[in-house]
Amino acid sequence: MMKHAEDQQYSSLEVEAETSNSKGKTPIMETPFIGKVAREAGHDAGRGGAAVSRGIGIIDFVTRLITLAALLAATIAMGTTNQTLPFFTQFFQFQARYYDLPTFTYFVIANAIAATYVVLSMPFSIVTIVRPLAKAPRLVLITLDAIAATLTTSAAAAAAAIVYLAHKGNTNTNWVAICQQFGNFCQRSSGAVVGSFIAAALFMLLVILSAVSLKTH
Amino acid sequence: MMKHAEDQQYSSLEVEAETSNSKGKTPIMETPFIGKVAREAGHDAGRGGAAVSRGIGIIDFVTRLITLAALLAATIAMGTTNQTLPFFTQFFQFQARYYDLPTFTYFVIANAIAATYVVLSMPFSIVTIVRPLAKAPRLVLITLDAIAATLTTSAAAAAAAIVYLAHKGNTNTNWVAICQQFGNFCQRSSGAVVGSFIAAALFMLLVILSAVSLKTH
Repeated sequence: MMKHAEDQQYSSLEVEAETSNSKGKTPIMETPFIGKVAREAGHDAGRGGAAVSRGIGIIDFVTRLITLAALLAATIAMGTTNQTLPFFTQFFQFQARYYDLPTFTYFVIANAIAATYVVLSMPFSIVTIVRPLAKAPRLVLITLDAIAATLTTSAAAAAAAIVYLAHKGNTNTNWVAICQQFGNFCQRSSGAVVGSFIAAALFMLLVILSAVSLKTH
Repeated sequence: MMKHAEDQQYSSLEVEAETSNSKGKTPIMETPFIGKVAREAGHDAGRGGAAVSRGIGIIDFVTRLITLAALLAATIAMGTTNQTLPFFTQFFQFQARYYDLPTFTYFVIANAIAATYVVLSMPFSIVTIVRPLAKAPRLVLITLDAIAATLTTSAAAAAAAIVYLAHKGNTNTNWVAICQQFGNFCQRSSGAVVGSFIAAALFMLLVILSAVSLKTH
């Protein structure tokens, strides 16, 4: 109820602004029929702000689809990597999976959570297309997108630190590079890290899109 | 000029909204003198939205000061750590500094950049206190805060992955824990990581504060 009343108030503000601004200009959009339809639809569909906002909403939705693809690719690439070396000792066989390194476990979990969030955020994104002047869904999205960006970045950065170590090793701490042995494992986990960083960048793009959309209101 | 015109328009909207809303209510704040003063000041200081927005602006500024302290503490703690072991071989002495590990170098640089950003963002934060209904500085801040949160998180997460490894080691990859030898180094870098995570959380708080403030407009 509160939200409805607020939207009504906002809509009346918009109408008043238009009236006061259009003094001395040719009122192109101000035919009674279009005005009535727009008011009946609950927002002023013909206005530039709404059109820009709706356009941003559509870009937002498409960006979410790409983000989901990047997150799923990263999660699956890291989660399914399993390289067994062709030699073994008496006690165990050398095998590399994501849960051998706690950082990679965190990576898989964090990316899976972010992917779930993207799916859950899509209805809100659709709301911003259908009702381009509604502020509430944008503000929910901008906050949660920023949190998702942080989560994805933390996973990608932590995994990147470990992947870098696996590739290069570190002579100061005596940590040897393992990518000579586990080449396939390293390659797939590097790919997963790249996918995750792309997803984090797309989340930042979503934050900026929402901010620009709020500016046009 | 554009910005000024927009603010003027916004301010006239506010006045109109107040007029249309206060029909049938006792106009407590509507004495001519207060109305004149508020208009002269360029915003409606007496309104709830502006007061809330200004309150959030003050919290925002204080949060920035705490964030700066956390970032500086993290940068300095990591940057100045220098532990030399009391024994040495013929060729070199065992010494641990932040630039021995590329991840820690990135940590110091990223935290220093974030600290610089916080200092540069403070004038914008002051603008949101002085002009609580201005949208542009909020939107600049919400975007840059989200980017700073991501930067700080990436540094903290990458360093956390290395610190974890330094503490626990990893038997699967044959990376031994180095904290037995470099206890002081590990302790200080762990503290720096915690400081950086606190800063990242505070950046997220700033994003949420800005979003809430935009909602009250």
